[in-house]
Amino acid sequence: MNYQTYFQENREQHIGELKEWLSIPSISALSEHKADVKKAAVWIAEKLNQAGLENVKIHETEGHPIVYADHLHAPGKPTVLVYGHYDVQPVDPLHLWETPPFEPTIRDGKLFGRGSTDDKGQLFLHIKAVEAILQQEKALPVNIKFCIEGEEEVSSPNLPGFLEQNEELLKADVVLISDTSLLEKGRPAICTGLRGLCSLEVQMNTANTDLHSGSYGGGVPNALHAIVTLLNSLHDEKGRVSVAGFYDDVPALTPEARAEFVKQSVDEGKLQKDLGLEALFGEEGYTFAERTGARPTLELNGVYGGFQGEGSKTVIPKEAHAKITCRLVGNQNPQDILNKIETHIHSHVPVGATVTVTQLEKGNPFTIDPSTPMLQKAAEAYEHVYGVRPVFTRDGGSIPIVETFSRVLAAPVVCMGFGLPDENLHAPNEHFNLENFDKGLLTIVDFLGRV
Amino acid sequence: MNYQTYFQENREQHIGELKEWLSIPSISALSEHKADVKKAAVWIAEKLNQAGLENVKIHETEGHPIVYADHLHAPGKPTVLVYGHYDVQPVDPLHLWETPPFEPTIRDGKLFGRGSTDDKGQLFLHIKAVEAILQQEKALPVNIKFCIEGEEEVSSPNLPGFLEQNEELLKADVVLISDTSLLEKGRPAICTGLRGLCSLEVQMNTANTDLHSGSYGGGVPNALHAIVTLLNSLHDEKGRVSVAGFYDDVPALTPEARAEFVKQSVDEGKLQKDLGLEALFGEEGYTFAERTGARPTLELNGVYGGFQGEGSKTVIPKEAHAKITCRLVGNQNPQDILNKIETHIHSHVPVGATVTVTQLEKGNPFTIDPSTPMLQKAAEAYEHVYGVRPVFTRDGGSIPIVETFSRVLAAPVVCMGFGLPDENLHAPNEHFNLENFDKGLLTIVDFLGRV
Repeated sequence: MNYQTYFQENREQHIGELKEWLSIPSISALSEHKADVKKAAVWIAEKLNQAGLENVKIHETEGHPIVYADHLHAPGKPTVLVYGHYDVQPVDPLHLWETPPFEPTIRDGKLFGRGSTDDKGQLFLHIKAVEAILQQEKALPVNIKFCIEGEEEVSSPNLPGFLEQNEELLKADVVLISDTSLLEKGRPAICTGLRGLCSLEVQMNTANTDLHSGSYGGGVPNALHAIVTLLNSLHDEKGRVSVAGFYDDVPALTPEARAEFVKQSVDEGKLQKDLGLEALFGEEGYTFAERTGARPTLELNGVYGGFQGEGSKTVIPKEAHAKITCRLVGNQNPQDILNKIETHIHSHVPVGATVTVTQLEKGNPFTIDPSTPMLQKAAEAYEHVYGVRPVFTRDGGSIPIVETFSRVLAAPVVCMGFGLPDENLHAPNEHFNLENFDKGLLTIVDFLGRV
Repeated sequence: MNYQTYFQENREQHIGELKEWLSIPSISALSEHKADVKKAAVWIAEKLNQAGLENVKIHETEGHPIVYADHLHAPGKPTVLVYGHYDVQPVDPLHLWETPPFEPTIRDGKLFGRGSTDDKGQLFLHIKAVEAILQQEKALPVNIKFCIEGEEEVSSPNLPGFLEQNEELLKADVVLISDTSLLEKGRPAICTGLRGLCSLEVQMNTANTDLHSGSYGGGVPNALHAIVTLLNSLHDEKGRVSVAGFYDDVPALTPEARAEFVKQSVDEGKLQKDLGLEALFGEEGYTFAERTGARPTLELNGVYGGFQGEGSKTVIPKEAHAKITCRLVGNQNPQDILNKIETHIHSHVPVGATVTVTQLEKGNPFTIDPSTPMLQKAAEAYEHVYGVRPVFTRDGGSIPIVETFSRVLAAPVVCMGFGLPDENLHAPNEHFNLENFDKGLLTIVDFLGRV
């Protein structure tokens, strides 16, 4: 029986199982759901077992557990490590859900429910694909390992340590992750870049107390004036970051990379209209897709000081604050960038002010060359099933674990997503289009055969 | 009997009466004290009557009443209008008062109680001075009018209208106000300048929703970047206001005016230390006293937008806000200045942003030439009683009613204060040094004799 027929015959069974898993409210962020998170881990461990995987183990961590399983009976063949997560986002505002988040329901060929696309539904495909091959062939064409965590939605605090402590156990030739999305319906995409992240906060002080603008105004420094001057120095008038050395480790865009961005065919006019923008804005000489996918940023996320109430108040604030994050690309190192920004800040403090800088998060950027053989094989698998060559995209966001896998295991990471961009991840009415459920199963089977 | 003897003999009586008035909690800001405010008005009306004044009338307003009285039996002599207020500030935090705010108590030659110096105690001097002259001489050397309001601590909403509607009733050759302070103990001062005020708020918008800094960062405008750029354009790097025409109506400081500022003998080193400043800061070429007394300002009182919580948030804010006030001097017109700032703002909106400006308050600056005869007479009176020539000061704050009296009645305003700067106006343990109670009575009698 070919796989298409197999998956059709078992479709009801598979979706029924997935619905059962989606019914478990494994919200990792909420401590009252701790038992549910554990229940979801136990549930998937059992499924791995039933699928024919071996050495299934629930590893406890300081937070939620990590589920491991493997099937290592293809000597001389590559090893594939599948990563996914069984935890989900919180569900509020609950009243906006058309059907309850933990009562999975199919409407218009879409499976609605929290976790349906992020990431239970997508991860489930890998288990059912492996199960199918084992049932049909009694053997796998590769060695396979699963590493499934329950803390992705709370920034994976325990995963990097687990990877580092279990390097041998997790060793693989390729890491396979289905937690991203197609470009749009019918247009598969392989993510080849994720921006890194670093963040800091700045506090500017001028006096030991707020001062009356009548008695003191014009004769003392104002913390808001000082922070505005400092913050304005961070970009030039064209929006380029003015911090010395900021762009040092940003690789120039190759013609090949630019060609891939063109394929993403972003409609800038529509984007501008949808977001209610007067104009798009960014570095000269780059498209929107390039600016967000291949160029770094320094963004003010919050600025505050002084009076925020109704009307006016004649106060000279003694302090002011700014929250800053950078998105990083190429070889930019978050610690190096934080240090460069801090140096810039300390050399741009206006007269009469003192500044305190606190460094916060650090996450490396991830990039992989689309010509990497494993990515080419993934592209072939997509093309075989979807009938169209996938686009190699670069995403402006940050998924630090992708870089962590890539670095710790020294293996290429294939981000083979089957979601769609409008499936309401992290929002009410999250869903998974079952067309991609069906095609995803076939794509994974095809990919494992090609590895 | 000379006046010194007269006031000594009547001291206990006078202070007893004042204590009775201070016991009435006439807090104009709190509606639960509305009856107390009225009671304080009735009380002082009765005292004006007892002192020998005529035409005593309590004029109702939309808020608290205005008390009027006069004594117009000196044909061919100038008319003096005394202004003061019988309302007081709220008293919290109550637990910081050493004795209850409405149980007036004398300690160390100081009368403690809410309103003791601001302004019941100072106003009371004028009534007792007039009473003394009438008792001693059976006539006054001038015509005199009293205009006493109950809303000074809530920005005098009804006084300007009352002045305009009763121009004939209130017509005078000089307005006499005792609601300011000496420079320090033993060093009288006459306030010859108060800065005007205007205020506005600015809202900067870029998108119709907050955006994710991963997906959009680098490709869309950021309202915080836009407002920082705009606000930074308001001053040059030396702190001078960059708005075109801002200084057009600011008169240059004359050598005489500078000499008066020198006499205020501000200790800039001590000031810097007391306020915890890295440095004093302001327009080049001016002292602290000149910067705050004779130069205009444009101050940011509040700036806010985006995330203000703990840690970081990867948001690109869709809007940002700023609160701005200016202190004005000389011939600067608040409406003209607001218009100039608004023009500057509209011509400095960064690409991709839209701005909304809301104009708020407007108050004219007040200045009077120290050589004005009435001010010279006041100086002579002070010198006669205190043994030292008063300093002509200019205050950085704004008391809009002073300018209103000056403008509506077209008369010089003499700010003849008897408070001290450290008498805790608007704060717990407000008090009035009785040395200035005694000298104040004599100074007023002397002044009325010289007018």
